[in-house]
Amino acid sequence: MAPGSGGGVSRRRLIGGAGAAGAAGLVLGAAGGAGGYAATRDDVPAALTTIGSTEEMFHGKHQPGILTPLQARGHLIAFDLAPGAGRKEAAALLRRWSAVAERLMAGRPSGDGAGHDTGVALDAGPSSLTVTFGFGRTFFDRTGLVARRPAGLDPLPSFSSDHLDAKRSDGDLWVQIGSDDALVAFHALRAVQKEAGEAARVRWQMNGFNRTPGATAEPMTARNLMGQVDGTGNPKPAESDFEKRVFVQAGDAAHAWLEGGSYAVVRRIRMLLDDWEKLTVDRQERVIGRRKADGAPLSGGTETTEMDLDKAGPDGRLLIPDNAHARISSPEKNGGAAMLRRPFSYHDGLSDDGTPDAGLLFICWQADPFRGFVPVQRKLDRGDALSPFIRHEASGLFAVPGGTAPGEYVGQRLLEG
Amino acid sequence: MAPGSGGGVSRRRLIGGAGAAGAAGLVLGAAGGAGGYAATRDDVPAALTTIGSTEEMFHGKHQPGILTPLQARGHLIAFDLAPGAGRKEAAALLRRWSAVAERLMAGRPSGDGAGHDTGVALDAGPSSLTVTFGFGRTFFDRTGLVARRPAGLDPLPSFSSDHLDAKRSDGDLWVQIGSDDALVAFHALRAVQKEAGEAARVRWQMNGFNRTPGATAEPMTARNLMGQVDGTGNPKPAESDFEKRVFVQAGDAAHAWLEGGSYAVVRRIRMLLDDWEKLTVDRQERVIGRRKADGAPLSGGTETTEMDLDKAGPDGRLLIPDNAHARISSPEKNGGAAMLRRPFSYHDGLSDDGTPDAGLLFICWQADPFRGFVPVQRKLDRGDALSPFIRHEASGLFAVPGGTAPGEYVGQRLLEG
Repeated sequence: MAPGSGGGVSRRRLIGGAGAAGAAGLVLGAAGGAGGYAATRDDVPAALTTIGSTEEMFHGKHQPGILTPLQARGHLIAFDLAPGAGRKEAAALLRRWSAVAERLMAGRPSGDGAGHDTGVALDAGPSSLTVTFGFGRTFFDRTGLVARRPAGLDPLPSFSSDHLDAKRSDGDLWVQIGSDDALVAFHALRAVQKEAGEAARVRWQMNGFNRTPGATAEPMTARNLMGQVDGTGNPKPAESDFEKRVFVQAGDAAHAWLEGGSYAVVRRIRMLLDDWEKLTVDRQERVIGRRKADGAPLSGGTETTEMDLDKAGPDGRLLIPDNAHARISSPEKNGGAAMLRRPFSYHDGLSDDGTPDAGLLFICWQADPFRGFVPVQRKLDRGDALSPFIRHEASGLFAVPGGTAPGEYVGQRLLEG
Repeated sequence: MAPGSGGGVSRRRLIGGAGAAGAAGLVLGAAGGAGGYAATRDDVPAALTTIGSTEEMFHGKHQPGILTPLQARGHLIAFDLAPGAGRKEAAALLRRWSAVAERLMAGRPSGDGAGHDTGVALDAGPSSLTVTFGFGRTFFDRTGLVARRPAGLDPLPSFSSDHLDAKRSDGDLWVQIGSDDALVAFHALRAVQKEAGEAARVRWQMNGFNRTPGATAEPMTARNLMGQVDGTGNPKPAESDFEKRVFVQAGDAAHAWLEGGSYAVVRRIRMLLDDWEKLTVDRQERVIGRRKADGAPLSGGTETTEMDLDKAGPDGRLLIPDNAHARISSPEKNGGAAMLRRPFSYHDGLSDDGTPDAGLLFICWQADPFRGFVPVQRKLDRGDALSPFIRHEASGLFAVPGGTAPGEYVGQRLLEG
């Protein structure tokens, strides 16, 4: 079950009524609020307004935006520390960012004074906003913390299919923003940029989207822009080894700051849709190894049926072809390696050559990228039938610290430890 | 009341359950459907699924997408007829496009055969999808129909503040797509492109968004990326002259094909947000002439209170400054000219100079652009306090034929008349 399919809902609550002011923490039922309505936690309005009133918790064991169900809108933004900025400035920045993330996720304005907020999120509730912070490999050089850089941030290997644009890859700092409302997400993006102040400069920025909650009759695994069900093979929170696969466990004292954290591998994967859409559905299904309509493996069953990788058809050929994407990326073919994929689709209009500049902002979460993403991508790189239809255009690897307790800021245990 | 504020809801219905296959016209409760559930019109699922199950009607007096409430996601795409294509090819194209629009708006797949649909909208309901078609000035040259070109398609005048990119302006044909689900909208965009076939080539394409329904506790006028309530002054469907202002009326025999139609002026208006956000809220409010929190005029009252353009403060100065945007664009200052603004916001990431490439895909609808958009824009061009913070980067003017009866295609009365 993918994060978007209703599993893994954690630390969220519905607040009474949407509306930025009405949603101000526990001060509900108070006068004022842009909508002018009073709301309490007992009178959650029916129907659609749960989109606005759903609040994700900033504090917790893990940062938000990892187990949060897929959101309809997302922004990824990477920063480099400004020349001259070091550990002290980074600590102050993470303190500011954590404060603004906590405020915005609760549906409150970004600053203390009226002039500090752009107003773009006014009227709306928190709308499942999450803000997630990570550190790139270069962050540790810049802050004099190389001795505490974990091996998980070693550079990713090169893959033969990579066409990476360095300007849209990597970065000292990475921020992932998600919300079910596009204006709430944009508001958070601008607030994060503003709080960067003189300490950090934007390196790259990307926009993405997923289904709107309620567009399907019941929560379902997401589809990508190839029309394929995407996320079926994700580890499930109910599985006994889920936490161990996705989050860094206690152990290594040098990296205690990363306990409860995770690694995010971010790849901008362009889909060559003009080519893909020329294939028949039958051919597309053999490239993937799953049925398009419902994501069931070609070996039979429903979406959640285990793939039977050895099953052959009447002609003796494997039902799930040797080079099918689902076979090669299957955990059983990768020593049980697993990563929690939690992507956004992207569509940036037309490329100069007239083809759609669209695809997947692939984001996967794992306790160790060299046991999660890397071995799977190595295999895919060698023989994935999907390769001719995709192109990895940008890449990033970020260590995402664990969640915070009230009063603590993200990364504090690293920066002040 | 803006289209997004719940007024002007016309010709829409809720179908039982979301799901592309389950939503196939009246064949509800049938076996199959991607989700495998049966649905009838009597058992509309509660809560969120009304986002997916809302269906806009393709046929009617007017085309859909004009009076439809603002949708969360939009695509604008302009085409030029291919070299050699004329009236006959254009007629065939509009017939294909009308057929696919009708199918998709009903939540059905785009083609007859399985191979013809990308599958991107599978599982989702129609999600308020609308597809709207318009003709640019050059369309009439290309199809030998210059004699039937209405004066409303005369070129727009130049404005001193224009910084128009010809490559992203104009076009023989224009299609507006809107949906509350991003994948449903993208699916329609690709289907429209595919049906263009050899008859027309994409000239430009833009993506936009609005609030997600339910992000606010109740329907409200939209906000733009400056954080301003935007759409308050729109004509209201309940007003006696609404139809006359927005839609072309019966009368001129040469243009009978346009009866029930409208003109769309499309402007890509970049917002210089880095500059705008430096202003205090007080200063922003004097630029606009309305309060940021609730859109009420600075002369007092609530959002819907009429502006008192002559009211002065204790210091003798006008409360709504002489060059305030709301004053200059006010219908009473423009001979009653009115247009129905129905925009999408856009955000295409970072510009090369590091500023956000974001703003408004301004779309306004009127019976006569030379009595609607043009006089207002002329005035704004001379003295709008907002001018330093925006830049018109692209422009289009399109005649949008009236709606169709079953069996008819959009523009048929022009192309076969």
